[in-house]
Amino acid sequence: MASIFTKIINGDIPCYKIAEDEDNFAFLDINPNSKGHTLCVPKKEVDKILDMEEEAYMKLMAFSRKVGKAIEAAVPCKRVGMTVIGLEVPHVHVHLIPLQSMANATFQHKESLKPEEFEAVAEAIKAQLS
Amino acid sequence: MASIFTKIINGDIPCYKIAEDEDNFAFLDINPNSKGHTLCVPKKEVDKILDMEEEAYMKLMAFSRKVGKAIEAAVPCKRVGMTVIGLEVPHVHVHLIPLQSMANATFQHKESLKPEEFEAVAEAIKAQLS
Repeated sequence: MASIFTKIINGDIPCYKIAEDEDNFAFLDINPNSKGHTLCVPKKEVDKILDMEEEAYMKLMAFSRKVGKAIEAAVPCKRVGMTVIGLEVPHVHVHLIPLQSMANATFQHKESLKPEEFEAVAEAIKAQLS
Repeated sequence: MASIFTKIINGDIPCYKIAEDEDNFAFLDINPNSKGHTLCVPKKEVDKILDMEEEAYMKLMAFSRKVGKAIEAAVPCKRVGMTVIGLEVPHVHVHLIPLQSMANATFQHKESLKPEEFEAVAEAIKAQLS
């Protein structure tokens, strides 16, 4: 069965899309650690990041760098953190998280955003990519 | 002033070394989230990972993949997580963390290891790299 991320990539589940290339797709995390928290996902489903072929892994990391730099330019924060855990959804995803403090990096505190706030931050990040 | 990681790389502060190449250096985190928790650090001091030149960033990511695969082979765990935060030491470092549960990824719970336990896990990881 397709992972929830494959359903998002295919448009079967809506998302706040940030970016896409041939191999990877980025969208806002709907349960963010902080405003602007984005997931970068390879279109090919692999469970563990270290099981990806080296070329696919390197493309994902280059894509995540590009998206991360756009987030850092668009969202006020001390820096953008990168985290790969993967214990919940068995489809590789790189978390890009605007950090103000360590609390934003622990996945213990979540931020509630209204749809218009998701839309606004997605537009701000996309503007940095274009 | 040299960062604490530069002092480790230069041998001015001891560490449990895991691996080294021309550009990057890996050693055990002395305050680990779990046994086998390793830091991958570029020899050139840069504060934020997204400020690294693309080539240096890609080399760090390739190095981290290689070390991460060795950790996954050496340390019993569900998978190895990767995290970059960087709010405490202003010198880029990729955390590679053997994960059994989400608790190992939150940086809230630390594991106490004896010197001989650090030595044993370092040797086990290094054996996978050679």
